[in-house]
Amino acid sequence: MKFARYLAHGDISYGIVDNNVVKEITNNPFSSFEITDHSHPLSEVKILAPSLPGKILAVGLNYRSHLGERPSLEEPLIFLKTPTSLIGTGESIVLPKSFKGRVDEEGEVVAVIKDRCKNVPKEEALQHVLGYTCGNDVSARDWQKRDGQWWRAKSSDTFSVAGPFIETDLDPGDIVMKARVNGREVQSESTKMFLFDLPTIIAHVSQVMTLEPGDLIYTGTPGNPAELKDGDIVEVEVEGIGILSNPVKKET
Amino acid sequence: MKFARYLAHGDISYGIVDNNVVKEITNNPFSSFEITDHSHPLSEVKILAPSLPGKILAVGLNYRSHLGERPSLEEPLIFLKTPTSLIGTGESIVLPKSFKGRVDEEGEVVAVIKDRCKNVPKEEALQHVLGYTCGNDVSARDWQKRDGQWWRAKSSDTFSVAGPFIETDLDPGDIVMKARVNGREVQSESTKMFLFDLPTIIAHVSQVMTLEPGDLIYTGTPGNPAELKDGDIVEVEVEGIGILSNPVKKET
Repeated sequence: MKFARYLAHGDISYGIVDNNVVKEITNNPFSSFEITDHSHPLSEVKILAPSLPGKILAVGLNYRSHLGERPSLEEPLIFLKTPTSLIGTGESIVLPKSFKGRVDEEGEVVAVIKDRCKNVPKEEALQHVLGYTCGNDVSARDWQKRDGQWWRAKSSDTFSVAGPFIETDLDPGDIVMKARVNGREVQSESTKMFLFDLPTIIAHVSQVMTLEPGDLIYTGTPGNPAELKDGDIVEVEVEGIGILSNPVKKET
Repeated sequence: MKFARYLAHGDISYGIVDNNVVKEITNNPFSSFEITDHSHPLSEVKILAPSLPGKILAVGLNYRSHLGERPSLEEPLIFLKTPTSLIGTGESIVLPKSFKGRVDEEGEVVAVIKDRCKNVPKEEALQHVLGYTCGNDVSARDWQKRDGQWWRAKSSDTFSVAGPFIETDLDPGDIVMKARVNGREVQSESTKMFLFDLPTIIAHVSQVMTLEPGDLIYTGTPGNPAELKDGDIVEVEVEGIGILSNPVKKET
């Protein structure tokens, strides 16, 4: 099942996407809901970021292809992103005018948490995942190297990108994510190549943090992320989810 | 003026505190409001964390007395805390069972953002502050040293403590904060001793992040924070605001 969060006629709703139509549901996918008799062609609604997370967690260095020659980690490298930096498909990624260096895309698979949970054993972890969406963990490299803490490197306004839909029927152990800049493929890898799989990550973070409905976990980026420049279009695609597409512009 | 966010008869409201009575207001202090004719003795309501922030920012190493022999920084050291780690006065600070080392209190003055703002010049920064509250930036030291990113060192559940009230009539250039553990004073210093003053911090972070009503900025801790152990009571006091008091317990 594929969920969308969208704006239509001034109202924000969740719905189920089927054949280019979104059927509105009552409540939201994190609680019990019913399918209403309202529906819209997808082309007539504005797709929003797929949830309103209370927190966003992200994993660093989770693919050998991105880790390179650095030694493997003993446990997942986790960092925080602000909920207020989140944008959806179609919205502009803004390169801050106070930053002069290189900003990269980082295509990722993002897990959307289904319900409130704490101290989750690995074997039960996937029961607490509603589904998966595409993510772009936009990264200002000089700040990431220099600041120590990655607050602005990873959470400047618009630096957390997710969407377009939440797909529930995927195996998180084998999702192929592709990223493109201006149509050129720059990343392509399966989550088979994770250094820490999703159950391990959820077990790890839920030891200290209660996970809540709509919380997002960015699971790491593979390979060599590409630089983003004013005027670029960056896309992150997962078969079964769709394409997360965002223009890039320099803040004026 | 002193604002409280509180629970009474099952409803969460904002009110104005005066002489041990809280007078309910319509809406909230971040928008236009009126004082209603409902009031409660403070002793009959449960005081909650003073806002529902979309994000929590914090400043590290912002007092010479805490920086010690380390060189001064060229710009403020900023890090993120999760909104979901926030608790109010009276709630328990929980020492995670997965952590074996030292957890410290960090008494701080916390600024509460009043309205949505971006790229704020220093001279206008304080116009965007509603007021000030007491904060405790609870810190798991071994994780802080070892993890690189301070996600669980500073944002484990219950590690962001704020309250009890938001006081609007304080000069952020001279607020005296005191912290006590089991009645023994462990920190006492004025924000006169900030290395980066609040306008500088707000100007700095708002270059890249839109600040929003209710966002919290923990302004840094002075001196030598004290260790917290199961059964302790930790208090952070600012004259004019009140006392933020929390019991400490080990997760079982």
